[in-house]
Amino acid sequence: MNRVSIAGATGYTGIELLRLLVRHPSVRIVSLTAESHVGRNIAEVAPSLAGYLDHTLVPLDASIGQDCDILFLALPHTASMAHVPELLQGGCRIVDLSADYRLHDSQVYGEWYKTEHQNPELLKESVYGLPELHRSSIGSARLVANPGCYPTGVILAAAPLIQTGWGDADSIVADCKSGVSGAGRKLSQTTQFCEANEGVSAYGLAEHRHAPEIEQEISRLAARDITITFSPHLMPMTRGLLSTVYVNLKQEIDRDRLHEHYEAFYEKEPFVRVLPPGRFANTHFVAGSNFCDIGVQVDTRNRRAIITSAIDNLMKGASSQAVQNMNLMLGLEETVGLDTPPVFP
Amino acid sequence: MNRVSIAGATGYTGIELLRLLVRHPSVRIVSLTAESHVGRNIAEVAPSLAGYLDHTLVPLDASIGQDCDILFLALPHTASMAHVPELLQGGCRIVDLSADYRLHDSQVYGEWYKTEHQNPELLKESVYGLPELHRSSIGSARLVANPGCYPTGVILAAAPLIQTGWGDADSIVADCKSGVSGAGRKLSQTTQFCEANEGVSAYGLAEHRHAPEIEQEISRLAARDITITFSPHLMPMTRGLLSTVYVNLKQEIDRDRLHEHYEAFYEKEPFVRVLPPGRFANTHFVAGSNFCDIGVQVDTRNRRAIITSAIDNLMKGASSQAVQNMNLMLGLEETVGLDTPPVFP
Amino acid sequence: MNRVSIAGATGYTGIELLRLLVRHPSVRIVSLTAESHVGRNIAEVAPSLAGYLDHTLVPLDASIGQDCDILFLALPHTASMAHVPELLQGGCRIVDLSADYRLHDSQVYGEWYKTEHQNPELLKESVYGLPELHRSSIGSARLVANPGCYPTGVILAAAPLIQTGWGDADSIVADCKSGVSGAGRKLSQTTQFCEANEGVSAYGLAEHRHAPEIEQEISRLAARDITITFSPHLMPMTRGLLSTVYVNLKQEIDRDRLHEHYEAFYEKEPFVRVLPPGRFANTHFVAGSNFCDIGVQVDTRNRRAIITSAIDNLMKGASSQAVQNMNLMLGLEETVGLDTPPVFP
Amino acid sequence: MNRVSIAGATGYTGIELLRLLVRHPSVRIVSLTAESHVGRNIAEVAPSLAGYLDHTLVPLDASIGQDCDILFLALPHTASMAHVPELLQGGCRIVDLSADYRLHDSQVYGEWYKTEHQNPELLKESVYGLPELHRSSIGSARLVANPGCYPTGVILAAAPLIQTGWGDADSIVADCKSGVSGAGRKLSQTTQFCEANEGVSAYGLAEHRHAPEIEQEISRLAARDITITFSPHLMPMTRGLLSTVYVNLKQEIDRDRLHEHYEAFYEKEPFVRVLPPGRFANTHFVAGSNFCDIGVQVDTRNRRAIITSAIDNLMKGASSQAVQNMNLMLGLEETVGLDTPPVFP
Repeated sequence: MNRVSIAGATGYTGIELLRLLVRHPSVRIVSLTAESHVGRNIAEVAPSLAGYLDHTLVPLDASIGQDCDILFLALPHTASMAHVPELLQGGCRIVDLSADYRLHDSQVYGEWYKTEHQNPELLKESVYGLPELHRSSIGSARLVANPGCYPTGVILAAAPLIQTGWGDADSIVADCKSGVSGAGRKLSQTTQFCEANEGVSAYGLAEHRHAPEIEQEISRLAARDITITFSPHLMPMTRGLLSTVYVNLKQEIDRDRLHEHYEAFYEKEPFVRVLPPGRFANTHFVAGSNFCDIGVQVDTRNRRAIITSAIDNLMKGASSQAVQNMNLMLGLEETVGLDTPPVFP
Repeated sequence: MNRVSIAGATGYTGIELLRLLVRHPSVRIVSLTAESHVGRNIAEVAPSLAGYLDHTLVPLDASIGQDCDILFLALPHTASMAHVPELLQGGCRIVDLSADYRLHDSQVYGEWYKTEHQNPELLKESVYGLPELHRSSIGSARLVANPGCYPTGVILAAAPLIQTGWGDADSIVADCKSGVSGAGRKLSQTTQFCEANEGVSAYGLAEHRHAPEIEQEISRLAARDITITFSPHLMPMTRGLLSTVYVNLKQEIDRDRLHEHYEAFYEKEPFVRVLPPGRFANTHFVAGSNFCDIGVQVDTRNRRAIITSAIDNLMKGASSQAVQNMNLMLGLEETVGLDTPPVFP
Repeated sequence: MNRVSIAGATGYTGIELLRLLVRHPSVRIVSLTAESHVGRNIAEVAPSLAGYLDHTLVPLDASIGQDCDILFLALPHTASMAHVPELLQGGCRIVDLSADYRLHDSQVYGEWYKTEHQNPELLKESVYGLPELHRSSIGSARLVANPGCYPTGVILAAAPLIQTGWGDADSIVADCKSGVSGAGRKLSQTTQFCEANEGVSAYGLAEHRHAPEIEQEISRLAARDITITFSPHLMPMTRGLLSTVYVNLKQEIDRDRLHEHYEAFYEKEPFVRVLPPGRFANTHFVAGSNFCDIGVQVDTRNRRAIITSAIDNLMKGASSQAVQNMNLMLGLEETVGLDTPPVFP
Repeated sequence: MNRVSIAGATGYTGIELLRLLVRHPSVRIVSLTAESHVGRNIAEVAPSLAGYLDHTLVPLDASIGQDCDILFLALPHTASMAHVPELLQGGCRIVDLSADYRLHDSQVYGEWYKTEHQNPELLKESVYGLPELHRSSIGSARLVANPGCYPTGVILAAAPLIQTGWGDADSIVADCKSGVSGAGRKLSQTTQFCEANEGVSAYGLAEHRHAPEIEQEISRLAARDITITFSPHLMPMTRGLLSTVYVNLKQEIDRDRLHEHYEAFYEKEPFVRVLPPGRFANTHFVAGSNFCDIGVQVDTRNRRAIITSAIDNLMKGASSQAVQNMNLMLGLEETVGLDTPPVFP
């Protein structure tokens, strides 16, 4: 049995991790931290888990890194960074769900997160935890930076087009629609029910921190520096993230040919489902699962590909992808504990 | 491996059954019927299941009953009844999710369902599939009538009070709030998004067909004929069923004593969670699971117990309870395939 | 032109008052207060009102009461009470949307609100602002206590039954379902989108502060002291309040006779619509309006009336009822500024 | 008093028209048609309007066109076309909410609507009813084609950029997010509550019929033939339409300069609100009103403008825009009956 712990266990990604880990056959949950609930039982703070867990919440300290094999960090951005070196020294391996180790360039990190990175050397070591692109590196990594929800959806949608060079990487526009849980469990005006319900809004247009992460991975695929337009939107629903990705085509390619290419590209991926031609992605059909559904369309009048991808932002966009990374790190079957169908309706 | 089939596989309860059965370790899915989709692949009609199933939908005929050990009937009320005798003759055992075999008295059936029962003799044989009350009979049954969603929530809430005689069974008022999926997948004006969203309404007050089912079971517990007031309401959400059950107390009992009694009553039940004193049931914390959460309160000023119960209407209110019944019928561990925590948020 | 001001203009009831008052033909808006937004423009805090108002938010002080004819207090319970005497001295008349002046008995106030009332003498003077019951007193009142949302729905549903003596006032159970806006605009865990969405929960059973208010008015109608069972529930929608009120009948009365009585009782009321026999109340059909829709049913098997009422909790349950009271106080036509149909869908 | 009638009065746009017209000071409602409800009272089919209207629904025939001054056609696409000539002959003027008279080129109509236009000559006469672009023509028109919801939002967002020539009209990508009411009141699987709730999906990518309508108007502004990429998406909410419009800039323009231009462009428009710099459009703040809110942003790294516009699809996207057109046609103040603030929350 592998020992796993979670720092930040009472946020939405922490609770989702627990939902997956309590029935994962190869792990045992050791410690759960939550600064604001120290001393309380996890089931009090997350009543959905009553009957599954009886852990008392503890503060995050160095010992956490000594008592487990895999440590999930579900802490806020910039808060995660400070703890990682000490925790790694304890001997554990880390899956960090924050953004702190996703960007390999500390200067880019500084620009977008408005703070200097405290461990730039670890940025070189950390692996970007998107298994579809970095599977083998993840397996041997000590520190895996779990991708953001938006980057997961956008990169998986765009990668096949960019890798072949069919799509013009400089033309990418990613228009993304996220459920409210993407904003986390902390209180805010924007995420109050009456503010978010029955309304759709844009936010962070051209300024959102997930842009550089997408650009890092797209640039790697394009083998040159790329910037993209990335537009997040808030949807009146709890879970789900739909990305509509626009890419100008450098040559005429029809939908069916593009579809074949996507099917071939993701043929061996257990968690990417390329939809039949003519179908577009719908977050409803991936809810509660680790799937990314991808729909392929070509706007032939404008020679532009329109790729839609749907994920559950708390799952493939966060917690289940973290478990997928853990499976790879532990040498387990990649799908263990993740083989549950989406919940519909 | 036990062979299972589903008649009516493309409705919400059918799809939910499939979600559970595809990862149930002791069953193999044989046939899926759906009259309106014969010849289509199940994953076309239920895209959430793509990658899990590759069955072609077939029409319902007698052969279905010959090729499986357990047959789930997820057919509309009054449609189910006609098929059962022939299907049983095929040798299978049946879990019927319709209402057709829940009432033991064919006259009561006739009054509430406005049609004569075609197999009154089978009404004597069929077992009401609420494991918490009829566990042993279910194990050996050939025909299990899976309870309605409302009755499941109301009976589990009221049973401990009635069994002791502390509550006045004649005073029961059950005010229930259901998500829209309880109405099934068929098209109707009432369940169109814009009609159901952002609105709460009552329907079928004092006239809903789930009343006699509740009364049958409460009468059995009270050992005399009981009628109750049952009021269903439609909520703007997909899943979830909250029952608020009011029962006059025949004697003074405080909340803590009543709470202890509920805990004792359900102590050994794997799927009933009695909430800590002071907490009321919330459908959010049971979504996607087979749990029934129960909250206990006493209105001392009016000497009235107020019991709240929360279930997922598609799960404990339908499909997962059907799997629980199947497990009992097959002599499996009751919790197999059902041990997944609720999905929150 | 009558001068009106609002203290607490940036909460949901304040914004809703402004929506109504900006197009009310007989008033001019003078001052808007909001402690946490002093110095900001109202349209920044309430962007829906951009183009209609250009007021800078000011702090609440005694001068507010001198510069207007009618002052609406949309402040939290127990905060309102302190300001009222001084404000009245300024010469204005007050419609208080808080609970502070609704209960005529300061001891009852102290028990339920856990604080001593600071102006018990004003409790004698204040008028309970439910026009259907207290129209004439409201007209001449200096201080009107605008009813709570739950009491409005419950009292209007029960009044015709209690007044005749047909219903047993001691048996009243009021099971109420409210949209989230009833909790106001302040941040809280419970009202975060992901906590409230897709879930239904009970809260404050047998302990909610709206109970004594209902009891005060029902006792008056019954001409003796009555206690009731009152159960609030939180619904996943923004607006709307459905009350299902159960009352045992002292004699056999069929639905049609009861319906006739309700129609007669509310015949002259401009804002109460008694639904045709066989129809139950639905919050959808009153949203955005000052209407209270009432549906009448009798559970003949249990000799119990089931009355459903639907209001928009921010309108008839708060702001539009406050305007209705203002109209009465100013001697205007009662329906001025309130004659807009509900918004459907 | 001007006499107005509605053909197709019981759909969502018909009901919304009625909500506006019953309190419009200059009109009297004459006839309401609804083929599937002939003989029923409008308030039975639209209970929100009970107390405001007492009309019996009649079938659509030629006489309707004789008895009114303005006739609103709220009929399905391709159904409207057949009736118009005869109705016009009756002497009325028509606001057609269907798509049948929006495209001036009958060949384009044929291509996108898959049917030959029956009155191509009327396509020359009809005026595209977007007051912000065609105000004067609307005033004198006999037949006004009320714009589609998507075109309204997209054209208003893009017009200022295209008119100046700052934006590259060939690069337009319009990613639109609509509430479910845009699909109308007819039954469909897609718009059932449980299918649409808690999910976001794309549909009709590169194939939606609103594209040619947008292209017609953008081409006019650009003074050459333009095609655009238009992507509709379905949101889990009843009302609201957010358009995110991407346009490559032909020159460097910063956000503040672009913002000034938008403010100047719409300075005299009563129903367009250009948001302060740094704010993006949110459908919540226009719900229930005739406003179009526009947010201006520039993605300087990619030299691309990102314009967001928010409308209520049933209002500025349909019924209130139709009333705005009616006001112009009747020579009334353009804002009469439309001067109500948005409903928030």
